[in-house]
Amino acid sequence: MRILVANPNTSSGVTDRLVASARLVASPGTELIPMTAPRGVPYIATRAEAAIGSAVMLEMLAEKRGSVDAAVCAAFGDPGLGGARELFDFPVVGMAEAAMLVACTLGRSFAIVSFSKSLEPWFAEIVAWHGLSGRCAAIRMLDSAFTSIDDVAEEKEQLLVDLANRTVADHGADVVILAGAPLAGLANRIRERVPVPLIDGIQAAVTMAEGLVRLNPRKPTAGTFRRPGPKDSTGLAKALADVIGHRDA
Amino acid sequence: MRILVANPNTSSGVTDRLVASARLVASPGTELIPMTAPRGVPYIATRAEAAIGSAVMLEMLAEKRGSVDAAVCAAFGDPGLGGARELFDFPVVGMAEAAMLVACTLGRSFAIVSFSKSLEPWFAEIVAWHGLSGRCAAIRMLDSAFTSIDDVAEEKEQLLVDLANRTVADHGADVVILAGAPLAGLANRIRERVPVPLIDGIQAAVTMAEGLVRLNPRKPTAGTFRRPGPKDSTGLAKALADVIGHRDA
Amino acid sequence: MRILVANPNTSSGVTDRLVASARLVASPGTELIPMTAPRGVPYIATRAEAAIGSAVMLEMLAEKRGSVDAAVCAAFGDPGLGGARELFDFPVVGMAEAAMLVACTLGRSFAIVSFSKSLEPWFAEIVAWHGLSGRCAAIRMLDSAFTSIDDVAEEKEQLLVDLANRTVADHGADVVILAGAPLAGLANRIRERVPVPLIDGIQAAVTMAEGLVRLNPRKPTAGTFRRPGPKDSTGLAKALADVIGHRDA
Amino acid sequence: MRILVANPNTSSGVTDRLVASARLVASPGTELIPMTAPRGVPYIATRAEAAIGSAVMLEMLAEKRGSVDAAVCAAFGDPGLGGARELFDFPVVGMAEAAMLVACTLGRSFAIVSFSKSLEPWFAEIVAWHGLSGRCAAIRMLDSAFTSIDDVAEEKEQLLVDLANRTVADHGADVVILAGAPLAGLANRIRERVPVPLIDGIQAAVTMAEGLVRLNPRKPTAGTFRRPGPKDSTGLAKALADVIGHRDA
Amino acid sequence: MRILVANPNTSSGVTDRLVASARLVASPGTELIPMTAPRGVPYIATRAEAAIGSAVMLEMLAEKRGSVDAAVCAAFGDPGLGGARELFDFPVVGMAEAAMLVACTLGRSFAIVSFSKSLEPWFAEIVAWHGLSGRCAAIRMLDSAFTSIDDVAEEKEQLLVDLANRTVADHGADVVILAGAPLAGLANRIRERVPVPLIDGIQAAVTMAEGLVRLNPRKPTAGTFRRPGPKDSTGLAKALADVIGHRDA
Amino acid sequence: MRILVANPNTSSGVTDRLVASARLVASPGTELIPMTAPRGVPYIATRAEAAIGSAVMLEMLAEKRGSVDAAVCAAFGDPGLGGARELFDFPVVGMAEAAMLVACTLGRSFAIVSFSKSLEPWFAEIVAWHGLSGRCAAIRMLDSAFTSIDDVAEEKEQLLVDLANRTVADHGADVVILAGAPLAGLANRIRERVPVPLIDGIQAAVTMAEGLVRLNPRKPTAGTFRRPGPKDSTGLAKALADVIGHRDA
Repeated sequence: MRILVANPNTSSGVTDRLVASARLVASPGTELIPMTAPRGVPYIATRAEAAIGSAVMLEMLAEKRGSVDAAVCAAFGDPGLGGARELFDFPVVGMAEAAMLVACTLGRSFAIVSFSKSLEPWFAEIVAWHGLSGRCAAIRMLDSAFTSIDDVAEEKEQLLVDLANRTVADHGADVVILAGAPLAGLANRIRERVPVPLIDGIQAAVTMAEGLVRLNPRKPTAGTFRRPGPKDSTGLAKALADVIGHRDA
Repeated sequence: MRILVANPNTSSGVTDRLVASARLVASPGTELIPMTAPRGVPYIATRAEAAIGSAVMLEMLAEKRGSVDAAVCAAFGDPGLGGARELFDFPVVGMAEAAMLVACTLGRSFAIVSFSKSLEPWFAEIVAWHGLSGRCAAIRMLDSAFTSIDDVAEEKEQLLVDLANRTVADHGADVVILAGAPLAGLANRIRERVPVPLIDGIQAAVTMAEGLVRLNPRKPTAGTFRRPGPKDSTGLAKALADVIGHRDA
Repeated sequence: MRILVANPNTSSGVTDRLVASARLVASPGTELIPMTAPRGVPYIATRAEAAIGSAVMLEMLAEKRGSVDAAVCAAFGDPGLGGARELFDFPVVGMAEAAMLVACTLGRSFAIVSFSKSLEPWFAEIVAWHGLSGRCAAIRMLDSAFTSIDDVAEEKEQLLVDLANRTVADHGADVVILAGAPLAGLANRIRERVPVPLIDGIQAAVTMAEGLVRLNPRKPTAGTFRRPGPKDSTGLAKALADVIGHRDA
Repeated sequence: MRILVANPNTSSGVTDRLVASARLVASPGTELIPMTAPRGVPYIATRAEAAIGSAVMLEMLAEKRGSVDAAVCAAFGDPGLGGARELFDFPVVGMAEAAMLVACTLGRSFAIVSFSKSLEPWFAEIVAWHGLSGRCAAIRMLDSAFTSIDDVAEEKEQLLVDLANRTVADHGADVVILAGAPLAGLANRIRERVPVPLIDGIQAAVTMAEGLVRLNPRKPTAGTFRRPGPKDSTGLAKALADVIGHRDA
Repeated sequence: MRILVANPNTSSGVTDRLVASARLVASPGTELIPMTAPRGVPYIATRAEAAIGSAVMLEMLAEKRGSVDAAVCAAFGDPGLGGARELFDFPVVGMAEAAMLVACTLGRSFAIVSFSKSLEPWFAEIVAWHGLSGRCAAIRMLDSAFTSIDDVAEEKEQLLVDLANRTVADHGADVVILAGAPLAGLANRIRERVPVPLIDGIQAAVTMAEGLVRLNPRKPTAGTFRRPGPKDSTGLAKALADVIGHRDA
Repeated sequence: MRILVANPNTSSGVTDRLVASARLVASPGTELIPMTAPRGVPYIATRAEAAIGSAVMLEMLAEKRGSVDAAVCAAFGDPGLGGARELFDFPVVGMAEAAMLVACTLGRSFAIVSFSKSLEPWFAEIVAWHGLSGRCAAIRMLDSAFTSIDDVAEEKEQLLVDLANRTVADHGADVVILAGAPLAGLANRIRERVPVPLIDGIQAAVTMAEGLVRLNPRKPTAGTFRRPGPKDSTGLAKALADVIGHRDA
């Protein structure tokens, strides 16, 4: 099966990192299709950037529809996820969503740990959007500058281990999610240095996407994720305008 | 004072309607600046369209910064509101937000009534985003086609009165919000035909925006709505890219 | 328009302070009518005192009905607010309510800061009564004696600045409400010394009351704030007994 | 032991009914002391009346302190309960509170059934104040006029049985609370005509008050129910002013 | 009346302690019937042990049915309580349940304090099961080994006093529940050393059980605690299999 | 990989049905190991039966530890799940849990539909235990007798289709979970007759279990699912007593 890894950040280094981490857990028959945002910011960190990235995510998925069996919305705040589920008939899984749902099978509560304080409000909102605030023990962030988004996982490795351990001790978290696309792959490296299970969002998302493809749910024709009727639009990317206008290729 | 009425729908007829309704309650010294989305869909009704509209809203506000004292995000689901509060230093009020907050001063619970079933998921999400689900008695929508978005308020007037009355009877709502930019102005016409206060979103938003301008709150330098640091971007509208990059005019 | 500032405390010094602060933001055409409780305690601080003050508030509003366009229930815990909305046909706004609703337009979460630990339970209950606990990051109080209720704002100014700053740092509050009628006017003086917007309850209440007068909502004849039917009573203040008995002047 | 049955309504017929019902379950050594409100309304039904009744309840308890071992706040909305717990050092139990807590030991959820629609908002607020909304399946009220508050239990007996049965069927309630002081005694008469346990508030309150007297908890000197410091007041009933001023007899 | 004190732990020393504490508050006419689990673990501390203890509790109650007027499920996490209410027609009260419900009549919020960190998850789950998380300020546990479950109350007395005091100070708890059957009797000894009311679970449970016997609620034939229809089973304890199979003695 | 399908019901016909359904979605390399409860009831339907089944589930998993890579707790209410996660070092997934978590990736809200009213309380409690009540639109059950637990899926097929459709229409559910082990396999047969995705619990559980085996999370040594220390026990099944006593084979 073909799973799109749609990175709404413009940094292709982050895309590479995501795919490398995903490959560690993907099933033998799974092909991962990487895609990097053609416009936007190098890494989404704020509500404003997430708003922009949500629209870009829809454009990216519109480009690839018909050629993939499922897609991962590969930024931790799941930009565009709700809209994607309306427009498309293949499963789309959010990286935050998958990380949290898998964490729910491993602990009473999870904590979210990441590398930049600016991410916290966006992450808090996505936890609430998914209705999982009751399972979230804490969202904890490092509070220092970093050199490069491509290497922040290595640069901050020990600080992140320390923060994960403090979070377990302070908040009683049963599971720690290492959040944010730039941290993909870190969980495998540090798993013995934190006393609870660590979740790598892209790995969680790819295993859930594989499961969904095998479960093969139907596209709803009722409910809030049925496809909206055709609508005209002005000034949108052509592929997306075609989806919205039901001009199916 | 100058208040921007930023309509993220591309329909200028809806903009006209918004401004006409707002004028009924604006203070003598208030100038309303209308603006219609340059791209997007005629009226936002789904999560996907709201994602697109959120990005467009940020572009619109970026265009006008420096020339207004406050802005109203003039679609009921408040697209782009969170991001706008990060990026800009003037008050931005959402139409859903203002309608609900004003409703809270008039009743224990409010109901949201509108003209199209497709709006419900988006509206439900904005209620939850604002943390006001506990005050919301019901979201009820008509379920029939309409001829034109510009005239839906007149076309469905009696059906909306009936639905508002049923909602009061069935759900014990103390207040009814007539939601959606295309219904601007309807509340004044039907106020004697429903036994509880009716809220017109744009009117609520303009009175709250005026209040905020008079209260003159400082722009935060801490908390989740402090301005993010400068960031490069690719392919964004110039005015918005300038705001994100701190290339202040 | 005429807005009653009904102070349910017996301290007229606090009334003066409330009106002085309100005047800083009131619109040109607004006349503020001060009123001080004729019986009760100098400043309400506990649930027991709030129960007494609630009954007194209804007596005060009954005295003034017919002569004002709106009223502010001018103590932070909004004593008598629910009952007032049943009995009277003009808008009544609570000072806690208005402070919190305005704070919602400026931040994801607000904190409440005040000068006496004894106020906390009452304040916590009013936050819950308004259904806004989910938006409240913290309620923090000073814990030392003060000399005079009339001058506590000046006496504790620096301690309150420090507490506001600690609250922002510790709880991530986006907005700080300086709560309690005796702190009216403080926010303007210290606004540059705290990095987030400060809310002055009476200022918030007066701007919301003005907005409500302009919105001119109808008195409900259904729902939980419709006027109760006439009822006999024994031993109540005459003006209030007349309202309850529908002996309208 | 001596338990005060403090009826904040002015109807002595209701007081008689409360005591008669309480006697059916009181322990042999328990003496019930009836007291009827000296001022107020014949039966409290609205938020405004509850505000007045809350102040009267404090006056009544102040009169009797020193002569009773515990008190029941004998109206279903528990007027004045929070304040009473601050001011007095004997246990005070609310009738709504006791009914709900006992109901919790008999069912996953309870419903509240009573005789007048006007009571619903007040009852809903007391459920929320006690933090028990999650256990409350429904609040259902008759919606027709009655002849006399003293005899409403008999006049509406069959209608209340029918409503209780519908509530069990419609809302899955495991327990039905027959709420409101005027319904005291009804549960015993109709217990075989409703398929789930029925709760009579005064009976629940008296058994809980007896239990509290036997458990003999200490008066707190910390926490939100510690006694407030002495305070001056103006124009209050003498017994209550003495309690507030620490002029202990 | 005869009240079964069913201890699902296999330690008879704990049973003795429970009964001794209960006798301090039981009414003159109450006979306490002690029973110790015939199989299981000396003291239940984890979810796994609670699962085992829940099944054992049902076996114990099945043995005694017909010979008691009410039963106390005498371990703090109330193992088997829900099932017991389905199967039996006499009142069954949980020790955690009773402690929390009584605490609700004495404070806005309670804290749970006990002697072993391993108890926390189980206790947290029972608070949530009862729908009382909103009233629970904190669950705090000692974190050191103890010599014998029979004497842990004496061994840790001072540490528990200290922890209770810290909990009041840190979390604003109005009441402290000394949780866990092995702490029965401790509250009476230390009541003057903590500034808020202390709750002893078995004492709370016995007073509530007495109250329920006097209130004499009917066994439901509707709702979620009606008795299930007869069912075959395999390999269960005979008394329990008889109850499940409606082979009533 | 080897995945244990542990059916806590004593009906082997239900076990066969579970495995047949699971095989439709299992990955090529997955071996499913069926196991039927050696004692208990033919199908668990009540809280009492779930309590018994929880203990039996722990005995079953103790028997198989060391021989499987993961286990599915194969009854919809997930009996014993929390305890299992404490005691064992392989992943254990509940059927209700997996169904709900997968449903969360397909809809804003899910509904649970099953064949017997007696299941509702147990199912409602497991939804709450998982913290997912906010995502659950409704729990709806048929209310008529059935002939045989082994064939109830066929006997009630059309009634279940009708109920699923009514649930979508009445409650706006985006996804329907066909709950209860006896309904395994039904979703595939009726998927075109309901307009939203249907979830088959055992299929969801097996795909999640496979994902967890590939993600290979560490066994925690901290948090609430760390393994409890060794403990003596009396009268338990030997394999379970060995696990509890750390007498690892």
